[in-house]
Amino acid sequence: SLAHRCHHRSTAMLDVPFLPFCAFLGTLGFLCVAMVGTWCQHWRGGFSLDGSSRTFNWHPVLMVTGLVVLYGAAALVYRIPNTWSGPKLPWKVLHGTLALGAFVLTVLGLVAVFSFHNSQGTPNMYSLHSWMGLGTVLLFSCQWAAGFGAFLLPWAPAWLRALYKPIHVFFGSTILMLSVASCASGINEKLFFSLKNGTMEYKLLPAEAVFANTLGLLILIFGVLVVAALARPSWKRPDSNSPDSRQ
Amino acid sequence: SLAHRCHHRSTAMLDVPFLPFCAFLGTLGFLCVAMVGTWCQHWRGGFSLDGSSRTFNWHPVLMVTGLVVLYGAAALVYRIPNTWSGPKLPWKVLHGTLALGAFVLTVLGLVAVFSFHNSQGTPNMYSLHSWMGLGTVLLFSCQWAAGFGAFLLPWAPAWLRALYKPIHVFFGSTILMLSVASCASGINEKLFFSLKNGTMEYKLLPAEAVFANTLGLLILIFGVLVVAALARPSWKRPDSNSPDSRQ
Repeated sequence: SLAHRCHHRSTAMLDVPFLPFCAFLGTLGFLCVAMVGTWCQHWRGGFSLDGSSRTFNWHPVLMVTGLVVLYGAAALVYRIPNTWSGPKLPWKVLHGTLALGAFVLTVLGLVAVFSFHNSQGTPNMYSLHSWMGLGTVLLFSCQWAAGFGAFLLPWAPAWLRALYKPIHVFFGSTILMLSVASCASGINEKLFFSLKNGTMEYKLLPAEAVFANTLGLLILIFGVLVVAALARPSWKRPDSNSPDSRQ
Repeated sequence: SLAHRCHHRSTAMLDVPFLPFCAFLGTLGFLCVAMVGTWCQHWRGGFSLDGSSRTFNWHPVLMVTGLVVLYGAAALVYRIPNTWSGPKLPWKVLHGTLALGAFVLTVLGLVAVFSFHNSQGTPNMYSLHSWMGLGTVLLFSCQWAAGFGAFLLPWAPAWLRALYKPIHVFFGSTILMLSVASCASGINEKLFFSLKNGTMEYKLLPAEAVFANTLGLLILIFGVLVVAALARPSWKRPDSNSPDSRQ
């Protein structure tokens, strides 16, 4: 029918190819990392391990790099069409390794903020940002451990893999959403802490505030695009609803 | 095969029925509205229209009620199995009306915070929270207007509906994710503003901070569950990939 033909033509117009989309996403992720580094280096005094706010500065850089950008790359591995044929194990190892790298950076990011608080005598874990953020990291640690146990240990039974796979996929997107929401609240909070007095007040919107607000929006856009790419049916591994074969 | 049978049995174990899930979600949404109202009434001085912080208090209540809970209800209309047979127009009108109600509450929520800032001489639109939040509301206004124009005006052509439908569905989930991220940053920010001095400092985690942090987590859980319900293939209208018939 005409309606059907129109429908197919018009949805085809929306078919973005995966690899150019990934190149765009990679650029956006690189920009987020470069901007969070620039913010901390140029406006917040740079980096050190002395327990001062220069130690804190590792926190945003490691979290954006690990729990947003590298996590996003790990999540998208199975959307690369090359992974759909041939043995699955190398791709599983790549997925798990990227996720492990993201997790290590995330833990170092936590170490940075706890060291800063402890050396300043500031209590830990009081703000909503800290509750959301630590909740996200705890979910991520469960996700990695359960994924390793179910998908990489060769003796994991097929029924367990089949049962756990949709749960793993669901939490994969959920953790990224919580992660970008945590970044937004963290950037907002840091700007209120840092831009308190005189002509640099946050409410007067100095250049640093415009820069870091823009960074926050780019992180949100990155997260939304990764979650959308993960949910897109035509980018999923064609056998994704069939049982996971043992390696 | 055995693997296939196990797969089907194990995914069937994860099949939550839609209506009990909705009842749970409704309870959670009601709890979020009750808690944000309790926070503002019990700890933040209640409500008024005098331009003081009691005017500001309408802002969180209207945003959580409109842009999270009512918006979530509107988004889930087409997941109710009753909507899958019979004429679609009444359900479209219900979806559009709930979304319009959410939008009206959202605009009133903006009026509350702008009135408060203007009467206090505080600048508007400087924080990342305000940029995210206003961006979310602008996306929502485009979403409502485009949805009305494409799906409710009877002369909208079928090809336009088919082209726009996946875009509308994508932004439906995206706006809710941005909305809950905005709520989290807003609650975090408000607690830093309100719990500044003496024994009530945010970092000492008084009862108000525990209460409002918990509210923030419940809002995030609500948003994640609505987005997950929207993405779940088995809860989608069976004809959702076929062209949208004119009403």
